[in-house]
Amino acid sequence: MKRKMHLDSVCIILVRPRFPENIGSVARAMKNMGLSRLIVVNGSSPLHANAYKLASGAEDILERTEEFLTLREVVSEMGCVVGTTSRGRKERGPDLTPEALAKKLIPLSQQNLIGLAFGSEKEGLTNEELSLCHLSTRIPSVESFPSLNLAQAVMVVSYELFKASTEIPKKEMRLAQAEQLERMLEHMEKTLLRIGFLDSNNPKRIMRVVRRLFGRSHLDEREVQILHGIWSQIDHHLRAGKKAK
Amino acid sequence: MKRKMHLDSVCIILVRPRFPENIGSVARAMKNMGLSRLIVVNGSSPLHANAYKLASGAEDILERTEEFLTLREVVSEMGCVVGTTSRGRKERGPDLTPEALAKKLIPLSQQNLIGLAFGSEKEGLTNEELSLCHLSTRIPSVESFPSLNLAQAVMVVSYELFKASTEIPKKEMRLAQAEQLERMLEHMEKTLLRIGFLDSNNPKRIMRVVRRLFGRSHLDEREVQILHGIWSQIDHHLRAGKKAK
Repeated sequence: MKRKMHLDSVCIILVRPRFPENIGSVARAMKNMGLSRLIVVNGSSPLHANAYKLASGAEDILERTEEFLTLREVVSEMGCVVGTTSRGRKERGPDLTPEALAKKLIPLSQQNLIGLAFGSEKEGLTNEELSLCHLSTRIPSVESFPSLNLAQAVMVVSYELFKASTEIPKKEMRLAQAEQLERMLEHMEKTLLRIGFLDSNNPKRIMRVVRRLFGRSHLDEREVQILHGIWSQIDHHLRAGKKAK
Repeated sequence: MKRKMHLDSVCIILVRPRFPENIGSVARAMKNMGLSRLIVVNGSSPLHANAYKLASGAEDILERTEEFLTLREVVSEMGCVVGTTSRGRKERGPDLTPEALAKKLIPLSQQNLIGLAFGSEKEGLTNEELSLCHLSTRIPSVESFPSLNLAQAVMVVSYELFKASTEIPKKEMRLAQAEQLERMLEHMEKTLLRIGFLDSNNPKRIMRVVRRLFGRSHLDEREVQILHGIWSQIDHHLRAGKKAK
């Protein structure tokens, strides 16, 4: 059975965040991506006025934020904690990409509380804090400029989790039946012949280009109707012109 | 041959950004994700002190930012412009996810300038601005809280492009310059008005569908020429008809 990410199991853990603005931005990003549980470890207050200013509608998350003194305490309440980092470390295994992490967390999220830990703006998570984590993830970025803003980092990881929580809806467009499209193209060919746009000795040459063009455009019914309507209207004008003569 | 996203072809276009802080955050996000070309349309200054404050190392991007008065001017210099939106619209086809967008842009980025347009913090892009865009993308988010912070939205899309800069290719196409396409569409509108196909009180309603259709078809130069030729030939016939009377 295919399962989706269970977002209610996921907590964002900010470790020593310095700027309340970032806590507010984190809350907003979380709410955009369907997350609601925020934990702050030994950092500035989620109830600071500047946090509220940036939350823009996610104040409820700030108000329900839990505060702890150490990451160790938080880890003891979770089934799985993921550390985020912008640097590779020798002693750790290879870091997961956020995308691979999301896939890995889907089954775990069904029955376990999952914490995603982000370090302070300046230093990130310490080696000791990373060693408390069960998994680690690193957001891909250019090597020479790898340090993301804290709330942006939370957004990227939350976005991958959100994608994993929903079957991405494929094109819902109702495509025009091939027959309808074919009738429109035949009509187009006749009209273009009549106005002398196509070479009557070799009308197919241009029509091949046109067919390819509309073929790859995946026209829906309304679009085919509009194009069909254009040719009919031209025919109508031509007939009216002849009568006038 | 395998190709990757060519990040140097990609410009971020901020349309009417109100807060210089966001421009600074956008510059930082871009630099994290290997993008370097920023355009501001009719918005606050990228050289504002608060933009610098948030750029945290991406000041070079702010200093090279180009400023324009309208999106239309910018579009005429690009091969493909993508609009971002947080709302679905009836007259547009389904929006691409950022992930699908990135895949689609890989081949285009090899030879064409690509613009990613983001609207103002409050209203996003207007319908008119969206109709100038060839493609549109919507960042997945919870339905009840879909509005992302501007810089966060730029981060998510840039992150998907960066991921694609290490990924697989499709065939390459030489796209018609947006200006050529624009001239063809303007000609089409005039001709369709003349034959009474478009409602002269609201010609844009149908033309939005048409623009959308040709926008996603990635017309090459020859195809644009053929379409242009059709409208010219109809004009020619109408003139000949009048003279005959």
